[in-house]
Amino acid sequence: MADKVRVAVDAMGGDNAPKEVIKGAVEAVNAKEEIQLILVGVEDKIKQELANYTYPKERIRVVHATEIITTEESPVMAIRKKKDSSIVVAMNMVKNKEADAFVSAGSSGAILAGGQLIVGRIKGIERPPLAPLIPTEKGVSLLIDCGANVDARASHLVQFAKMGSIYMEYVVGIKNPKVAIVNIGAEEEKGNALVKETFPLLKQCPEINFIGSIEAREIPSGYADVIVCEAFVGNVILKLYEGVGSTFKKMVINALKSTTLSKIGALFVKSAVKDTLKSFDASDYGGAPLLGLNGLVVKTHGNAKMKEIRNSIMQCVIFKEQQINEKIKERIIVKE
Amino acid sequence: MADKVRVAVDAMGGDNAPKEVIKGAVEAVNAKEEIQLILVGVEDKIKQELANYTYPKERIRVVHATEIITTEESPVMAIRKKKDSSIVVAMNMVKNKEADAFVSAGSSGAILAGGQLIVGRIKGIERPPLAPLIPTEKGVSLLIDCGANVDARASHLVQFAKMGSIYMEYVVGIKNPKVAIVNIGAEEEKGNALVKETFPLLKQCPEINFIGSIEAREIPSGYADVIVCEAFVGNVILKLYEGVGSTFKKMVINALKSTTLSKIGALFVKSAVKDTLKSFDASDYGGAPLLGLNGLVVKTHGNAKMKEIRNSIMQCVIFKEQQINEKIKERIIVKE
Repeated sequence: MADKVRVAVDAMGGDNAPKEVIKGAVEAVNAKEEIQLILVGVEDKIKQELANYTYPKERIRVVHATEIITTEESPVMAIRKKKDSSIVVAMNMVKNKEADAFVSAGSSGAILAGGQLIVGRIKGIERPPLAPLIPTEKGVSLLIDCGANVDARASHLVQFAKMGSIYMEYVVGIKNPKVAIVNIGAEEEKGNALVKETFPLLKQCPEINFIGSIEAREIPSGYADVIVCEAFVGNVILKLYEGVGSTFKKMVINALKSTTLSKIGALFVKSAVKDTLKSFDASDYGGAPLLGLNGLVVKTHGNAKMKEIRNSIMQCVIFKEQQINEKIKERIIVKE
Repeated sequence: MADKVRVAVDAMGGDNAPKEVIKGAVEAVNAKEEIQLILVGVEDKIKQELANYTYPKERIRVVHATEIITTEESPVMAIRKKKDSSIVVAMNMVKNKEADAFVSAGSSGAILAGGQLIVGRIKGIERPPLAPLIPTEKGVSLLIDCGANVDARASHLVQFAKMGSIYMEYVVGIKNPKVAIVNIGAEEEKGNALVKETFPLLKQCPEINFIGSIEAREIPSGYADVIVCEAFVGNVILKLYEGVGSTFKKMVINALKSTTLSKIGALFVKSAVKDTLKSFDASDYGGAPLLGLNGLVVKTHGNAKMKEIRNSIMQCVIFKEQQINEKIKERIIVKE
């Protein structure tokens, strides 16, 4: 068991649970030997679904949980009251070191709340940021924080920058990642009060490769690897990214169908355009880690399908193997 | 002169000045009889450019200004020191009621600073927001505020919502426009401190059609007509909109060129795709008004070409004819 990475998976979370979740889980187990899976949720349903697949039985365990937290519930209340929900049961396993990581497509609010209340922060980490990878022209960038901590302080943003750098370097594999702070102009004196306070602090950090401000316009080009912002702004960026992307896709597809000529041409360009639009698809990159916790919690999109679940589970292996939390403790906490 | 709308135009502002600016100005004058133009800037250069066109001479006047404010300068300093710059001279004309409106593609910072310092706010308006129209699937939405007032207060956002409603109804022609506040979730209890404070105030406004929160993901669909946010967030939205849009365009164009098959198909789909991508082009809708001033100031994109300049000037006519500032005074100030 020593080399295994034990990942608890919320079998009941998300729009496509349990089917796609379990499909992704089986795929992950079959793809990587190190993975030891714990599927948490309503046992009957999970076993029924699992019966459709071939996989090494000893590497998938089912843990029964009777309740399900919905996205309509108040997150903090749900975490406190639904002690037998898949999220709470799985998070307790992470807390008690029975699992190294937890992957869920369920209620974002409940996952964020549970991460703090159950799994708990690494001592010295002020706020745990949610940090999705977003597609860019060059590959991916890490957007940190993206919804966990609204009204953050400058010291939080500095920790986000450091944690994000470690994640990009060791999980995604980008050497000396470029860190930038989201701003409304390139100059140091630009910005709101929070950015003006944070900018000089980031400039003074020897452990990150701070390149200054990034305007939102430059984010899709891949100008920075780690994009630091407070959660409200980060959430707006993430969702607008998805919104503009999907509107554009729809428009291009409609254009291809709009005239007789274009319909003919569409037959020729379809595969090339499809591949291109796909490269802007966030699900390829796995879910968003909630960093700075005593264990790893990964939030996928609510509508995650097999591929995103599988990739999120694989992400947990790299996170453990690269000892990200140990690096966070060594490099961030000791210094502060 | 009574029915004329006197528009001062910054002949020296923007990447394509004076050529495109003057081309747009001439187009506007030729298109609308009500327009009386004042081209402000270096007289020689303006006259040299004007010599290329046919237009009613009595409706374009040139006012000489020797200095130019660049985007590199500190806006407030530039406004204070460069008394003979095209921006300062033109804004003084608006202040002194020699012009009804001012259109510029020059330094955003200088235009925002000059709007407040020279033209001045309508009495009772706390902060003048910059409010560009952004393209959506359904047409356009007004994004207010988009860069003028970072770290705004709830009372500012309420005024933005009211001014934005008036603008959308009477300038853009959308009856009873839907107003929403940018938030990170649909529920009333979601958001940062500013949004939580503003939400109930907007709910209580009888004079606007408040529909609640809008997540950034829904902005491109045209879910709301007036999108209220503080300037930092608004600026991020505007710039990301442009950034994701231009990345997508680039990617689709590259995809069309990527294989022999797609190159053949591209010949058939080119015009349909081009038309579609164009409909997402912000320049069609003219510039962004800075609302709540004693006169109208319109900021176009720095790289504005003829069409955006022309449309911005035409926008000023509707603004004057529809008596937007009178409506702002009646409906907002009196009530508060």
